[in-house]
Amino acid sequence: MEEQEATLPPKAEFSEWYNDILWRAEIMDVRYPVKGLYVWFPFGFGIRKRVYGVLRELLDRDHEEALFPLLIPENEFMKEAEHIKGFEEEVYWVTHGGTSPLDVKLALRPTSETAIYPMYALWVRSHADLPIKVYQIVNTFRYETKHTRPLIRLREITSFKEAHTVHATWEDAEKTVEEAIALYREFYDRMCIPVLISKRPDWDKFPGADYTIAVDTIMPDGRTLQIGTVHHLGDHFSRTFSICYENLAGEQQYCYQTCYGISERSIAALISLHGDDRGLALPAEVAPTQVVIVPVIMKKREEEVLEAAEVLKKELVTAGYRVKVDTRDLRPGAKYYYWELRGVPLRIEIGPRDIDNGVVTAVTRFGEKSTISREDFISGVQMKMAAMSEAMTTRAVQHIKDHLFPVEDITGLKEVITKGVAAVHWCGCKECADRIEEAADASILGTEVRSELIGNGSGTCVICGKPDSVMTLVGRSY
Amino acid sequence: MEEQEATLPPKAEFSEWYNDILWRAEIMDVRYPVKGLYVWFPFGFGIRKRVYGVLRELLDRDHEEALFPLLIPENEFMKEAEHIKGFEEEVYWVTHGGTSPLDVKLALRPTSETAIYPMYALWVRSHADLPIKVYQIVNTFRYETKHTRPLIRLREITSFKEAHTVHATWEDAEKTVEEAIALYREFYDRMCIPVLISKRPDWDKFPGADYTIAVDTIMPDGRTLQIGTVHHLGDHFSRTFSICYENLAGEQQYCYQTCYGISERSIAALISLHGDDRGLALPAEVAPTQVVIVPVIMKKREEEVLEAAEVLKKELVTAGYRVKVDTRDLRPGAKYYYWELRGVPLRIEIGPRDIDNGVVTAVTRFGEKSTISREDFISGVQMKMAAMSEAMTTRAVQHIKDHLFPVEDITGLKEVITKGVAAVHWCGCKECADRIEEAADASILGTEVRSELIGNGSGTCVICGKPDSVMTLVGRSY
Repeated sequence: MEEQEATLPPKAEFSEWYNDILWRAEIMDVRYPVKGLYVWFPFGFGIRKRVYGVLRELLDRDHEEALFPLLIPENEFMKEAEHIKGFEEEVYWVTHGGTSPLDVKLALRPTSETAIYPMYALWVRSHADLPIKVYQIVNTFRYETKHTRPLIRLREITSFKEAHTVHATWEDAEKTVEEAIALYREFYDRMCIPVLISKRPDWDKFPGADYTIAVDTIMPDGRTLQIGTVHHLGDHFSRTFSICYENLAGEQQYCYQTCYGISERSIAALISLHGDDRGLALPAEVAPTQVVIVPVIMKKREEEVLEAAEVLKKELVTAGYRVKVDTRDLRPGAKYYYWELRGVPLRIEIGPRDIDNGVVTAVTRFGEKSTISREDFISGVQMKMAAMSEAMTTRAVQHIKDHLFPVEDITGLKEVITKGVAAVHWCGCKECADRIEEAADASILGTEVRSELIGNGSGTCVICGKPDSVMTLVGRSY
Repeated sequence: MEEQEATLPPKAEFSEWYNDILWRAEIMDVRYPVKGLYVWFPFGFGIRKRVYGVLRELLDRDHEEALFPLLIPENEFMKEAEHIKGFEEEVYWVTHGGTSPLDVKLALRPTSETAIYPMYALWVRSHADLPIKVYQIVNTFRYETKHTRPLIRLREITSFKEAHTVHATWEDAEKTVEEAIALYREFYDRMCIPVLISKRPDWDKFPGADYTIAVDTIMPDGRTLQIGTVHHLGDHFSRTFSICYENLAGEQQYCYQTCYGISERSIAALISLHGDDRGLALPAEVAPTQVVIVPVIMKKREEEVLEAAEVLKKELVTAGYRVKVDTRDLRPGAKYYYWELRGVPLRIEIGPRDIDNGVVTAVTRFGEKSTISREDFISGVQMKMAAMSEAMTTRAVQHIKDHLFPVEDITGLKEVITKGVAAVHWCGCKECADRIEEAADASILGTEVRSELIGNGSGTCVICGKPDSVMTLVGRSY
């Protein structure tokens, strides 16, 4: 692949910055000849692999991974009425095998309820089979007619993690909803991504759900990005697909279900929240390269410096780090630029003077330079890494705070919304909601907000003045 | 999922055994309501994950993982004439998005040459961009009209590992073919699966390839299973997709390519070669549970035994093993049956008498019972595991030997073929091939055989008597 010349647009021009960094840092190639389908470059795939590795690690504590087919027969897909309504405009249909038309059309899964639940109906017999907590990580498809955007609005979502659980009671399902929210929070904590968790309004819940809890973050341009959802499905689907167990009284009892998903939007958030004018900034946990060692070479002591760099690498690898030594024939500045663009959390420079002084020079991705004594090299690196991770979280939290605005006067809403997310009080009725959304020229994200970044106190409805109205987030979303 | 009662059919009835074990050992659920599409149970998925983990480990030495879209636009798919001819009867077509017909039909990839190579045309500019060695692990689709069979003949191949490489010269590509063969051999060595490697006859090569090297094994019923292929693509595709580099003389030069793939047939082979009348037998490397500890409980010293089992587990986990303690309220015999069915390589039994004697009882999946002294517990387990792996290879090699028959007289060919694979000498001409295949009622698998299990000496053509004819494998294949 060709050398990336010229510079990245400033992050303040977020849309240009985003498109450009995907290309320059070799995350995605957008030149695939179908709208809304993109190619993961190996470097981008390396990030994806690690992000989903963390997600798997968290899920594997008490979920099991399985795999269900991509193709859903039309008759199964069409069983749940609300669900169909929610997806019918977006489904890709396979109609031909070879040159012959198929007897039954096959949908490319937009999500897998209708692929999985006919199987669950076979798997669940008695109380002893419950709960089921299964997930899969798969490609799903949406025929998006809106403007598509890599990692954010796709026709092939290549990395959809969807969990589907089955329970004996509504309350057990609710408990699982709460556990899923906690799990997603932990996942995003590890990505250093602060989130806003709220309950979607009724008209914006998942088609077929009792209620939907959403995980959002705020992008650099102030728009929100939904990066996770958790749905309590009640017994809607279990009634449709006959997922029953025999209770102690020997009666057939419909089960209660949940499902919850995270897509590669998690990676869009990762890139967008942490990156800056110089490129990506990746949390160590998911950085394909965690430490880059740049030997600072003078003609005289070249071999000695290269050897020292290799020794440092070996020590870091032994300590469990992913490390590269950059020995390319380039100016040091060009190397710094290259690795900063790719978000490597820590750069170690070593030259003759460092060797003489028994130190190495460490520079974090945020530009903090310091020396680490050679003796304390590994513990020094560990401290830098921990500090870097903290700095990333701090910076991201500040960004969210800077884009969250409590609003009490409806007249100021529209302007606030151009900058970020507004927190208003809303009585809960549809009429007031419509007026809020109209005034904001934006949508109600959700209520029952759970975030340390903003309170959740009740107040006076910004429209009708009803007291004890709930805190509600309003914003423009991707 | 319900208790599995009754017993497995004997492995001698291979087809019944195979279907039954997939269900009983919870590998695949075949009840998905579309022909040729199956569901991976969590246990089966655990095997799959580890098998592909080994493959990734081997590939990541000098390949990069990436990800390309599933959907291929008709115009790209139709570019390479031989390739289309090879696949046109087998391609699923997406014709509608939502309720509207698409402008350009989209193929579900049956394999990804035509998805990847338009991108390679953009990626390759100069000699410095070469070689490219990229792979992906994806779902691919074939509209199979023949009898489908889980893991073997599928409409959705859920686990296709396909590598695609680009080189400056035909010879570089050939070298990569050899490296890929070595890699596949190493992969199957680690699965304890002996393979027969041969060059497919010209009429059976990959559509669009210069030549195809295939990796086959012999299933319990004597039929061969192709479990890997390596293709030298020459410059067929690079000419079609304009994958060029500028050579030193400043001229545009077409590249040379290879591709090589392994699918979940690798898991079909794993199950079929190692399993026996009692169920699966899994190499430790890919067994979801490597050691099961069964506490042998007498009323009196129950707590002590359970504690001892937990201590053993802890030691094994620390040593890196995947371990379960089976404390279910079942007879020991039922537990043994359960874990043997699931192929756990080693069972550790511990009861009061073992504690008193300072030992544990170890039983391999092949039924070898011994005691390990408590002091040497971990090293004892390590030895048993290594011995078990060797025993699996030995047994599988013997199976292949028992099903490989040198044949010099064409009249005996048909009978031999009912039992396994015949090795004949063939002059290389199509007329003799036709007569061999007719006499065998089977197909020529390949020539230039590479296997320690059978020589590769030349001889007299079994049809025309021409001397110096090459050794050729003939068999019925899945």
